[in-house]
Amino acid sequence: MTVLVFLDPEFPNGRLADASEPQLMATDLGATRGDGIFESMLAVDGSPRKMDAHLDRLASSAQALELDPPARGDWERAVTTALAELTRREGTGEGAGDGTGEAIVKLLLTRGIEGAHSPTAWVAASAVPAGMRERAADGVSVLLLDRGYDSTLAERAPWLLLGAKTLSYAVNMAALRYAKANGADDVIFTSSDGKVLEGPTSSVILAVEEDGVKMLLTPELESGILPGTTQRALFDAAEAAGWARGYGPLEPAHLMEADGVWLVSSIRLLAPVTSIDGTPISSSPALTEELTALLRGALAEG
Amino acid sequence: MTVLVFLDPEFPNGRLADASEPQLMATDLGATRGDGIFESMLAVDGSPRKMDAHLDRLASSAQALELDPPARGDWERAVTTALAELTRREGTGEGAGDGTGEAIVKLLLTRGIEGAHSPTAWVAASAVPAGMRERAADGVSVLLLDRGYDSTLAERAPWLLLGAKTLSYAVNMAALRYAKANGADDVIFTSSDGKVLEGPTSSVILAVEEDGVKMLLTPELESGILPGTTQRALFDAAEAAGWARGYGPLEPAHLMEADGVWLVSSIRLLAPVTSIDGTPISSSPALTEELTALLRGALAEG
Repeated sequence: MTVLVFLDPEFPNGRLADASEPQLMATDLGATRGDGIFESMLAVDGSPRKMDAHLDRLASSAQALELDPPARGDWERAVTTALAELTRREGTGEGAGDGTGEAIVKLLLTRGIEGAHSPTAWVAASAVPAGMRERAADGVSVLLLDRGYDSTLAERAPWLLLGAKTLSYAVNMAALRYAKANGADDVIFTSSDGKVLEGPTSSVILAVEEDGVKMLLTPELESGILPGTTQRALFDAAEAAGWARGYGPLEPAHLMEADGVWLVSSIRLLAPVTSIDGTPISSSPALTEELTALLRGALAEG
Repeated sequence: MTVLVFLDPEFPNGRLADASEPQLMATDLGATRGDGIFESMLAVDGSPRKMDAHLDRLASSAQALELDPPARGDWERAVTTALAELTRREGTGEGAGDGTGEAIVKLLLTRGIEGAHSPTAWVAASAVPAGMRERAADGVSVLLLDRGYDSTLAERAPWLLLGAKTLSYAVNMAALRYAKANGADDVIFTSSDGKVLEGPTSSVILAVEEDGVKMLLTPELESGILPGTTQRALFDAAEAAGWARGYGPLEPAHLMEADGVWLVSSIRLLAPVTSIDGTPISSSPALTEELTALLRGALAEG
């Protein structure tokens, strides 16, 4: 069950729409060209988590695509409307969540109907599917797949939209299908020059402990990856708790030798990586527990 | 004015739908992930051109994305329905075409509604916008833009979907915007290893005349480009008319030194390239006329 709220100047708090009926024009450039952007964020007990970070990234994606995004307040009010409606329906037993009161909130913005020169914007809220978090906590096996781009390309080729979260996710979805067809759960993309990048729907982080110092590492943004909102919230919380932090370039050998590797994302949170290309790697339930607690704490504050 | 016909088992000839009303679900993976494929073809006087070639390429794209496409007959009947309706409306003065009786017919196939595991398929038909063909015939200035991929990547990285015509066209659209913002009309993508690839919505061909032999050249498919249906129809017709033909690898120097360079596509047909990165190149109205006549002849037969 999904709650839809369209951003609409005639409805200051957003226009509720029936998700069981068609709501998009067949000529919307989001549908015909993947020409748009999105964000997926977590809400707990009706309250969105790290919304500012998501709205910041949405603004940055919009700039990359030369889209004119709605005002932040319009998004915020539409999210409030969507979550209130989701809570109301769950109260009536219409919801189908995992009983934790957690929801997925998506913000979507397309270039709009062909020829209309006016973007289409909506919020979609739904309960977190039952079992999703538990499956992630069990650990994921990953394949390293070549993303095809050089890690120095992003800055000199802005038309490639590297670092923007666009609706053109066919390759991300194909990579996940390829992993599943080859016995793995997920993917870590590498650059053509052999650097670790990101997952199709997650950031990659790793932990190393040396001489009693714990350190979190993640690839540098300049390599053309998405700025991970969950990665950043976790790094900030870990630093406040005494961890060191560092930024790539990272290579697959760093993953194989780390004390722990995780795919992190807004909904699934931390998924420990248990094997890479079929080779088991170190994973530490204690570190996963510690980092998950740090992240949960940061999300509760933000 | 667009005519929409959805492929629907309950409507053997397709289900006509009102394009001025929402017809797509907001949770369709075509709209939320660009997860689907498409074709754009030309119809003349109610008759689609090189439909077999478009259906072949659609099948190949579907295979790359592991989509289960509708039967060819279902597409064919839906196209017939759409074109009959377009003709009917133009007869009543509702059309807004260029008066040539030419139409754009798009076939679209998405992975369908999230969780439903059933693709969404539709046909959209509309008149060719007035003036489009004339603007193309006037010639286009292009920028060479790096597509970021190595020309040897396609075969070893099937998850990148190179050579499939997906709905994830945000980069293609961004490249065209980049060109326009920099004073050019269109783009020719190059590979990271410096080979000529294709335009964002076209194939690239060039002509050379040596020792009285005319030859058409285009980049080789193995470089990860889309198989161009118009390029192929033109090459077949040219060969029958005594031209030689050849396939890349091509480099920008080949474009600069050719007797003519064109962007070719199903709707715009041949657009002569008049400059590359601001440098004028040879263009020959006589060759454009000769090749356009060959292509028109091939389309009329096919």
